[in-house]
Amino acid sequence: MSEETWRDLPDVIETADREALERFLDGLAPDDRTLAVSRLPESSRELLLETIDPEEAAEIIEGLPDAQVTEAIEHMPAELAARIVEELPSHHAADVVGDLRLESAEAILCELTPADAVDIRALSEYEDDVCGGLMASEKLSYDATTPVGDVVADLQSNADRYKNYDVQYVYVTDTAGRLEGVLFLRSLLLTPPWTLISEIMLTEPRYALDTATIEELHALFDSISFSAIPVVDEQRHLLGVLRRSAVERRRAARSDRDYRLTQGIVGGEELRTMPLITRARRRLSWLSVNVVLNVIAASVIAANEETLQQVIALAVFLPILSDMSGCSGNQAVAVTMRELSLGVVRPTEIVRTALKEVSVGAINGLCLGLLVGAAAWAYSGIPWLGAVVGIALMLNTILAVIIGGCVPLVLKRFGVDPALASGPLLTTVTDMCGFFLVLTFASALIDKLV
Amino acid sequence: MSEETWRDLPDVIETADREALERFLDGLAPDDRTLAVSRLPESSRELLLETIDPEEAAEIIEGLPDAQVTEAIEHMPAELAARIVEELPSHHAADVVGDLRLESAEAILCELTPADAVDIRALSEYEDDVCGGLMASEKLSYDATTPVGDVVADLQSNADRYKNYDVQYVYVTDTAGRLEGVLFLRSLLLTPPWTLISEIMLTEPRYALDTATIEELHALFDSISFSAIPVVDEQRHLLGVLRRSAVERRRAARSDRDYRLTQGIVGGEELRTMPLITRARRRLSWLSVNVVLNVIAASVIAANEETLQQVIALAVFLPILSDMSGCSGNQAVAVTMRELSLGVVRPTEIVRTALKEVSVGAINGLCLGLLVGAAAWAYSGIPWLGAVVGIALMLNTILAVIIGGCVPLVLKRFGVDPALASGPLLTTVTDMCGFFLVLTFASALIDKLV
Repeated sequence: MSEETWRDLPDVIETADREALERFLDGLAPDDRTLAVSRLPESSRELLLETIDPEEAAEIIEGLPDAQVTEAIEHMPAELAARIVEELPSHHAADVVGDLRLESAEAILCELTPADAVDIRALSEYEDDVCGGLMASEKLSYDATTPVGDVVADLQSNADRYKNYDVQYVYVTDTAGRLEGVLFLRSLLLTPPWTLISEIMLTEPRYALDTATIEELHALFDSISFSAIPVVDEQRHLLGVLRRSAVERRRAARSDRDYRLTQGIVGGEELRTMPLITRARRRLSWLSVNVVLNVIAASVIAANEETLQQVIALAVFLPILSDMSGCSGNQAVAVTMRELSLGVVRPTEIVRTALKEVSVGAINGLCLGLLVGAAAWAYSGIPWLGAVVGIALMLNTILAVIIGGCVPLVLKRFGVDPALASGPLLTTVTDMCGFFLVLTFASALIDKLV
Repeated sequence: MSEETWRDLPDVIETADREALERFLDGLAPDDRTLAVSRLPESSRELLLETIDPEEAAEIIEGLPDAQVTEAIEHMPAELAARIVEELPSHHAADVVGDLRLESAEAILCELTPADAVDIRALSEYEDDVCGGLMASEKLSYDATTPVGDVVADLQSNADRYKNYDVQYVYVTDTAGRLEGVLFLRSLLLTPPWTLISEIMLTEPRYALDTATIEELHALFDSISFSAIPVVDEQRHLLGVLRRSAVERRRAARSDRDYRLTQGIVGGEELRTMPLITRARRRLSWLSVNVVLNVIAASVIAANEETLQQVIALAVFLPILSDMSGCSGNQAVAVTMRELSLGVVRPTEIVRTALKEVSVGAINGLCLGLLVGAAAWAYSGIPWLGAVVGIALMLNTILAVIIGGCVPLVLKRFGVDPALASGPLLTTVTDMCGFFLVLTFASALIDKLV
């Protein structure tokens, strides 16, 4: 098959032949399939998902960007949407339903079996970033007094239903549904059928509370080798199963989102298949905040226009000063964000962080100040101009790394997302201080500069 | 226990009482333990890891930043290090050994059992980002002609050894070790012992080549629900097992790294516990490249100093122009990076990306140009100055988003890491063009501006 076969998808959809369509999709490599479906116009994507087998539709949906999934499911008849949603693993189904408008979500939930609807409703009440929002409610659990033989018989007779559970452990509960232990599948294999499971279970199992945060879960999985752990509520009632991969996937999604936020892609992800106006508006919302902050910073230059007029060479170095301080500060922001995500710094440790940054800032500020100062001297032929630019850059570098290192901690303590707000805050303050320093020094030494 | 108990770790280490130390560590929450150990001076961290049970040391190591692990293992006697390494899962052990100096790695490999050494050596030959570098070599495989009863008997008699395998599937091979099928553990449970495993295995199983890239693996796992798949070489020989969580974890690590790279933390991660000189030098390496690029961009201002001298108000708007164009371009970079990681754009699609950006750039450029142009008019009282600044910003915004959208694609095609090089390249070019546009317009219209 040629490399670009996936581009034929719109033609195949036009034939409106379900079998041909399914055959075509099956013939594509998974990443070609994702690419092909993601590139379709919205209406074709809906038509495709409505036409093919719901199980296959669910498979495709798991690869698509969230925004496209929400869009397609919103516009489908609720009954059809429900048949796709019930093929998704419970936590993914809850994510999809949670992203819909309330009425659409309600309509789809009504089309599900009551048991599924209850499960998904419960899951979608959790935040995305806590244990309950990441767990799967599909689980295998038996009362502690069940004999091994009965468990095996149940597994056997319901093998088809459990097929999608991706079972690795069996959980043991008391009569009130409280977690008592964990059974490895291999223990079931290796034990006579009349043994009670309470005798072969691992007692005092590790578990996660449904309210645990992603950071806590990450630390927990770092300290154990299991691929999944049971999730319980405060009374230790077994609620579901949390898989290591769910935690890892969520962390990856968060890192991606943080990166996008720091670059000013606010309000969810942007894809170039989205309508132009949506894309332009979302980017503008962040840019216009930035214009205001920039104007504020530039007002420092405006206030010192007279000095600048007399020493026009300074104008060459103002953008350099602004950019270099921003870079230094952003490095410190990145280190703090990293330390926060690794769990090796606490949001309260502002003094420690500031002290650690002062020394780095002093060294790098000295180097950069010498370098840029020398350039200013060479360019203008005035040694004092080199001193003014160099010393301003040095001091501003120290300031930038202190602010950059501490701002994410402070924002986090106040519950603001550090990925979004750290950058603009940092560059505005460092621009203002940088312009102020260099222009004030120049005013003071104006006799030596002209 | 009080919240800050973890701070007592150095005191407990000083007592040199192994039992007290292990008790203390057991009493800490996992994230407190990571924090406490990561904060120790290097020598104490080594002492701690050498003192406690190797199994516990391995557990702690799995939570620590890579740089600290390498440091500690390097300085340990090879024999002790080997005892910790052999407690790690094979792929993690290979990562640790792969990060060491060659002589240290060699010394540790000699202390391992030959079988382990061969495994780890084979694994560490793979790049970190390909399938072979992510797989575990621990696997359960049996010849296709084995009866179910023999498999169960083997599992039973080696239960202790397999305990750490985290087994979810059993693989079936032919006599030459080529993959033929996959067995679910539950099938073993539910089948009479005299059945041959070839009769109950899943034939034509999904698998990954050992040379598959992380992007291919991610797409593959998106399209299946298994938590692990077998890894084979070109001749289909079974080499190991790749778990979904390994792929997810690697992706998370890559996202984190990309974010750090975009912010100029080059050459691995920085932790504030590292020596000052290391931290300063690593940050400087990126900053000094940036100084040079900044000076190049500023040379455009220097070349037009005369115009600037006549219209000093322009100096207020140069940093704004530079910052705003950088922001717009970085948004486009972030969208492209996202689309690359989702697999919804190919590196060859430069024309498509550029066209998609032109329209967004035109809308946003118009809005920003009007806004900043109005500010320039209001500030200077000269309508033509507003026009010069506004039109330059508009054109430069369009340019910035085209460059920002396409640069990561071009870099990727040439095999350069887009996360590292996109930002500096982008801002240098947009700065130069922005300064050039505004100062050239101003020179042309100098009569209207003074």
